[in-house]
Amino acid sequence: MPRFFLDQDQIRNRFIVLTGEQAAHMKVLRMREGELVTVCNGSGTDYRCRISDVSADQVCLVVEHEEPSDAEACVSVSVYMAYAKGDKLEHVIQKATELGAAEILAFPSSRCVVRLDGKTREKKLARWQKIAASAAEQSGRGMIPAVYALDSYEAALGRAAQAETALFFYENEQSHTLSSALSAKLTSVALITGPEGGFTEAEVDSARDHGMQICTLGKRILRCETAPLCALSAVMFAAGEY
Amino acid sequence: MPRFFLDQDQIRNRFIVLTGEQAAHMKVLRMREGELVTVCNGSGTDYRCRISDVSADQVCLVVEHEEPSDAEACVSVSVYMAYAKGDKLEHVIQKATELGAAEILAFPSSRCVVRLDGKTREKKLARWQKIAASAAEQSGRGMIPAVYALDSYEAALGRAAQAETALFFYENEQSHTLSSALSAKLTSVALITGPEGGFTEAEVDSARDHGMQICTLGKRILRCETAPLCALSAVMFAAGEY
Repeated sequence: MPRFFLDQDQIRNRFIVLTGEQAAHMKVLRMREGELVTVCNGSGTDYRCRISDVSADQVCLVVEHEEPSDAEACVSVSVYMAYAKGDKLEHVIQKATELGAAEILAFPSSRCVVRLDGKTREKKLARWQKIAASAAEQSGRGMIPAVYALDSYEAALGRAAQAETALFFYENEQSHTLSSALSAKLTSVALITGPEGGFTEAEVDSARDHGMQICTLGKRILRCETAPLCALSAVMFAAGEY
Repeated sequence: MPRFFLDQDQIRNRFIVLTGEQAAHMKVLRMREGELVTVCNGSGTDYRCRISDVSADQVCLVVEHEEPSDAEACVSVSVYMAYAKGDKLEHVIQKATELGAAEILAFPSSRCVVRLDGKTREKKLARWQKIAASAAEQSGRGMIPAVYALDSYEAALGRAAQAETALFFYENEQSHTLSSALSAKLTSVALITGPEGGFTEAEVDSARDHGMQICTLGKRILRCETAPLCALSAVMFAAGEY
């Protein structure tokens, strides 16, 4: 059954009217009267709807049934990734959304080559949020992960350290594994990974001071866009998602 | 310390002479006499070498020490991925190499849009093997995973089913999790994932007939390039790699 997100405002009544792009989208899918679609409010509720009318420029839906989405993860994982070159961050936003991340946060660190100023940042953020929405729709999620661009490294550490399990991945850490860092029952997890050039020792010390666990992701050096997705996949597995 | 692969033929003596591209590569890295580099034979042995001479068109190395690579995984994982559109297979080859896969095998299935005939196949294979070699070098691996292009779906099933743990991921499987499919001690694991359009029911039945376990990767629909890397990350985690 096709699924797509609508603003909660549009779902207030039992009848939903789609116009413009939304109606065009239904037509691309060749949806007809009587067929079922799932509408999600992006905050965890799914609405099963039947198409009641298809006209030239609008499509009408009737809400038949409403239920909590069953595609959300049992653990809330925040993915913190340092600014990276090219489209790596976009790649991670798309994949982390598929893999069930609750939110994705980009942050600067001393070896980040990429810096975002005010205007570029706003534009990038809008684009990133769109990528998350599209990946959430395609993967059948009930929520769209929020994407943030944090101002400083310290802001990232301070925020991440509030998670019940706050993990910082460092390629020179050899003994403390992700596995030993995870508790039996996971509720909220923060994962911090670095930029292309890695973290400085001072940055690692600062993370430790914030109470984060410094962990290894094994003996192989992972690229900056591989590490967060590897860690996220493993945490979801450890939480019993698959 | 910089690492790179050489053919075993080049490492037969205690003295290694690099010419052409290899010598140029060392110069790009600004390596000088007396500095250390690690040479790998691509089959699991690392050689620590000291640069003894840098001249206009060649660089000479002296082997000081030889030891088994410590970056190889404790479990042998074969990643079987159906042919996919665009550069998805290249992406998976690069990432699966970083994540420690032992080999990567592409295969056709009935919903694959992409088909490879003889000549294109040879060209693609050469390119894929190069991507694996480059990713192995960058991630510090001791082995370059072999990349194969299999002729048929049946060939993929027959080969994969020989692994001690043979797993087939299907989006309509809901109860049998990857976690329940894995034994406590993993030695060899095969992971099969499908193309953009997924597997047909007949293909799933055939996999079951071959003795493969049909598994879910959770409640979210993963793209065809995300599923193998998610499964591989989880298997490496379960095997105690991180």
